[in-house]
Amino acid sequence: MRATLIHGAGDIRIEDVPDPIIKQPTDAVVRVVRSCICGSDLHPYGSMPVSDEPRRIGHEFIGVVEDTGTGVSTVSKGDLVVAPFAYSDGTCEFCREGLQTSCLHGGFWATGDVDGGQGEAVRVPLADGTLVKLPIGEDSALLPSLLTLSDVLGTGYHAAVTGGVTERTTVTVIGDGAVGLLAVLSAKRLGAEQIVLMGRHKQRTDLGREFGATDVVAERGDEGIEKVRELTGGRGTHVVLEAVGHRPAYEQAFGVVRPGGTISRVGVPQYEEGPIGFGSLFGGNITLTGGPAPARAYIEELLPDVLDGTIEPGKVFDSTVDLDGVPDGYRAMADRDALKVLVRP
Amino acid sequence: MRATLIHGAGDIRIEDVPDPIIKQPTDAVVRVVRSCICGSDLHPYGSMPVSDEPRRIGHEFIGVVEDTGTGVSTVSKGDLVVAPFAYSDGTCEFCREGLQTSCLHGGFWATGDVDGGQGEAVRVPLADGTLVKLPIGEDSALLPSLLTLSDVLGTGYHAAVTGGVTERTTVTVIGDGAVGLLAVLSAKRLGAEQIVLMGRHKQRTDLGREFGATDVVAERGDEGIEKVRELTGGRGTHVVLEAVGHRPAYEQAFGVVRPGGTISRVGVPQYEEGPIGFGSLFGGNITLTGGPAPARAYIEELLPDVLDGTIEPGKVFDSTVDLDGVPDGYRAMADRDALKVLVRP
Repeated sequence: MRATLIHGAGDIRIEDVPDPIIKQPTDAVVRVVRSCICGSDLHPYGSMPVSDEPRRIGHEFIGVVEDTGTGVSTVSKGDLVVAPFAYSDGTCEFCREGLQTSCLHGGFWATGDVDGGQGEAVRVPLADGTLVKLPIGEDSALLPSLLTLSDVLGTGYHAAVTGGVTERTTVTVIGDGAVGLLAVLSAKRLGAEQIVLMGRHKQRTDLGREFGATDVVAERGDEGIEKVRELTGGRGTHVVLEAVGHRPAYEQAFGVVRPGGTISRVGVPQYEEGPIGFGSLFGGNITLTGGPAPARAYIEELLPDVLDGTIEPGKVFDSTVDLDGVPDGYRAMADRDALKVLVRP
Repeated sequence: MRATLIHGAGDIRIEDVPDPIIKQPTDAVVRVVRSCICGSDLHPYGSMPVSDEPRRIGHEFIGVVEDTGTGVSTVSKGDLVVAPFAYSDGTCEFCREGLQTSCLHGGFWATGDVDGGQGEAVRVPLADGTLVKLPIGEDSALLPSLLTLSDVLGTGYHAAVTGGVTERTTVTVIGDGAVGLLAVLSAKRLGAEQIVLMGRHKQRTDLGREFGATDVVAERGDEGIEKVRELTGGRGTHVVLEAVGHRPAYEQAFGVVRPGGTISRVGVPQYEEGPIGFGSLFGGNITLTGGPAPARAYIEELLPDVLDGTIEPGKVFDSTVDLDGVPDGYRAMADRDALKVLVRP
């Protein structure tokens, strides 16, 4: 079959790879119907050294089950399923607590001998714990919105949930990428009274307003911090959802958070060290939380709202390519010409 | 009157200073009956540059009200009172939320023209919001335990509360100073099922066991982390209470916290930058919380337990000095000959 590989920064290729087969009784093989490119894919696309071995890429997909191992009982051939961006057994102590990204036997797509999502098919380990059956057909107009359950909707929602958003909190969302916009949608769903979106691409922030942002701040750094403070009586917001992953976004976060408030990060940090002392977090009793979203934990909760159209997270897709178009899709997202690219293999 | 001043690292002096007087209608003047030396006082004692101006020091005291401004209504001359380590108005939005350390009009002892606690008397700004009347006499044997409401008990309790300790959590406490030991006591009070105390001074860790520690780990660094993991099925504990403030203690904290768990810091960080990326906090969805304890918020809650002897936090005092003995008290605490020094001015 054909699948996407990354060979280094800026170098995405579509190549022939072995067809996936059942290796373990708990495996399923899924033919990919929809996949997409993630903002986090842009991190290796921007910085992967050419000296690294080429590797598969992609971690979001909806597909049709083509084969299952003898130990798989919750999905069967012909089912349309969505996969979260981590596979997990669904039974370990962390899965039972809803932290599937820390599953004792789980892992991530496109690592080791596990397939990536941007290809024609995927071997899914731990299929029972991982896959969720979708009660629609593979030509449904809802596919783009349902595909966001793989990652970006669950990730935005994780930010809002771990950040403690309620109807009594004010919220700043940093980043107007797909995760930031769906963090806005999630904060709105949880009832936040004020949602300030920090982003400077009008088309995206307009979608943010549609998703529930009450204010948009285009400025960055100290100027942006000042603007958010002006909008919040000088205090900052109770919750800050950081959906970028670069250090300046984190520094912006502790600039706009209210004393006693919470910064929830879901942008994968591209830095290891950061300010956490008296002047940044400690003095104001600021809580720093977040991490890789256990997207699997939120699928059942969010699925009904997607199916009945209460939320339309699929609006983040503004471009569609086939497999051959994936390299162009990366370029478009890296150049910020596209917000999020849907892939129809 | 006489009071304690710090002139630089290792240089504590008792000197004559102006008697406190009422300056604002909201002030009270309190004659100090008991004060003490704090682990956080050891930070400037260890590192204050001699080029800095000498300054007052001390932020924990019980005393008798000697005078009040015309705007003070909750305490009056002759009342025995305890002061938390920050003064606060009790009425602003942060005070109403129980975050008195972020009071819009409050501040800290021994800053600007505000007296320090290690002296014969103190002008207390915002007396109504700050002071809590004690229903006992100034010769009560409970004074040492009540004095811990100023800081170390409230701080240990803040760590446990913000860390989310419940009867379903396992806890590691890092640090066998007074705050660490009272974090143990607080975790026990909140019902924690397992409390691992990391400390290597047997006399102190013995008191920790008396306060509720179920395990003691004397090793530090990687070896200490390994020991805690052995004690917790390889997982680490749900909550880590960091009561030291130096970077190695923080690094130990993310080494022993369970995925999805919380690190609550109450040791004042002597570092500004620290690891917060994928390998430390983010990957495991670790929450970092804590800050200066709003000790004022916890006094009413903890006071009954102290008065009826349910808890005896005053056991952290193992040495008593008069004002002239304060410089020796600092030396003894810095040399770890004393755990916590009580001052009878």
